[in-house]
Amino acid sequence: MPHWKLTVAYDGTSFNGWQVQPGLPTVQGRLSQSIQNITGESVLPQGSGRTDTGVHALAQVVSLWLDSPIPASNLQRALNNQLPGSIRVLRVEPAPTTFHARHSARRKTYEYRISCEAVCPPTLAPFVWSCTWTLDVAGMQRAASYVIGEHDFTSFAATDPDLHARETEDGQSGKIEGKSAIRSIFASSWHREGSLLIYRVTGSGFLHHMVRNLVGTFVDVGRGRTPAEAIPGILEARSRTAAGPTAPPQGLFLLEVEYDNGT
Amino acid sequence: MPHWKLTVAYDGTSFNGWQVQPGLPTVQGRLSQSIQNITGESVLPQGSGRTDTGVHALAQVVSLWLDSPIPASNLQRALNNQLPGSIRVLRVEPAPTTFHARHSARRKTYEYRISCEAVCPPTLAPFVWSCTWTLDVAGMQRAASYVIGEHDFTSFAATDPDLHARETEDGQSGKIEGKSAIRSIFASSWHREGSLLIYRVTGSGFLHHMVRNLVGTFVDVGRGRTPAEAIPGILEARSRTAAGPTAPPQGLFLLEVEYDNGT
Repeated sequence: MPHWKLTVAYDGTSFNGWQVQPGLPTVQGRLSQSIQNITGESVLPQGSGRTDTGVHALAQVVSLWLDSPIPASNLQRALNNQLPGSIRVLRVEPAPTTFHARHSARRKTYEYRISCEAVCPPTLAPFVWSCTWTLDVAGMQRAASYVIGEHDFTSFAATDPDLHARETEDGQSGKIEGKSAIRSIFASSWHREGSLLIYRVTGSGFLHHMVRNLVGTFVDVGRGRTPAEAIPGILEARSRTAAGPTAPPQGLFLLEVEYDNGT
Repeated sequence: MPHWKLTVAYDGTSFNGWQVQPGLPTVQGRLSQSIQNITGESVLPQGSGRTDTGVHALAQVVSLWLDSPIPASNLQRALNNQLPGSIRVLRVEPAPTTFHARHSARRKTYEYRISCEAVCPPTLAPFVWSCTWTLDVAGMQRAASYVIGEHDFTSFAATDPDLHARETEDGQSGKIEGKSAIRSIFASSWHREGSLLIYRVTGSGFLHHMVRNLVGTFVDVGRGRTPAEAIPGILEARSRTAAGPTAPPQGLFLLEVEYDNGT
């Protein structure tokens, strides 16, 4: 029974997130439907983690078992023929039996894109947070550096009770109260690309809304509403109310998921 | 009574084109509604021409009269607050009383974007035609050069009877049979920008579907289905069946509309 690793890109604008939901368009649901149309098999592909409504992925990783002995290149072509242009299968590779897109993930990288133009071009709007405030990027950079290392990120995790009852962003199940909110951040920094201001963060995993709450807080720093030096205290508070607002979903991209042994 | 010239950009993905239609989201309809919300005035802003469903504009020009003595900068800000991010007002300028966005237009420039990547990135998909064929760009360039000058473009105009009954692309009214299909093309060429292949065309005006029919025909040339040297004969045939297919709408951008005296 072939086991596959798929690398998938999507424009999250028209989907209710990754995770399958009855009657709603989701990326996992569209993938599952396409696989069924191609092979006749009813399988639920496993992603490296959920992404919310409006969040994009340049390289989400997905694992699935199929009975059908379809070659990798045919599977990729057939999926891309079935799927809408807003979901593309970039690679299809055979995976070891022990591989699991979520459980085997070791590092994830997210990117958050902010447009600083006075008037955000309409073709960029679905892919950025348009911020017209004057931002102190040096301060945002200092703030971003404070989260590097191992920390309890409760202050930056979603507090919605429904969300607590669901899995956290990186797929570790259960309520934050009952599970560890400790994550390791390996890199966290801002850079400019043309008119865009981009935050890139790599970590062992991420709580639900964590990247968007970090960005919302860093933008508060950029606007002068919060000093960069307040970040350690916000982490220590272990309270969502200590941090800043949640940045909107459309600026967020899942950039890369890394596994051991290059899988 | 102030007379205004607006320059407007839009992502056409979620609109049923420019022209107002009862019960459907259109750019003209959204602009009209926003103006009403701001000023209480019921006006139908005039565009330089229609764009179809899915077609984008980087600088559509719009003219309108308002009773309200609202300053230009306030009008721009209020409109951008009212409008969705998919429509942005880039400029608001006072216009001479004789100015009309459609009747005063002297030259228009359109751009058509083709993605040549084997797998088109999902975030590009709403803004390109994804062509995975090997294309002979030199041949497409030769083909494009044949349309420069004054020609009868009947072979490249939409044949849909409903469309004939409506205005042509550049706003000249009536059926093609009854009106001239002669247009002057000042520039017509292909260039590469990264992984994109871009056709840019400037002319006195354009018939309905004319740019998309030119592009569909040039891509037929690129694929080796039509020789570049067939273009003069296709023009002379004055028959839609002589030319190639209509390229899909989402690759097309209205780039610029030019007027006399710099208006």
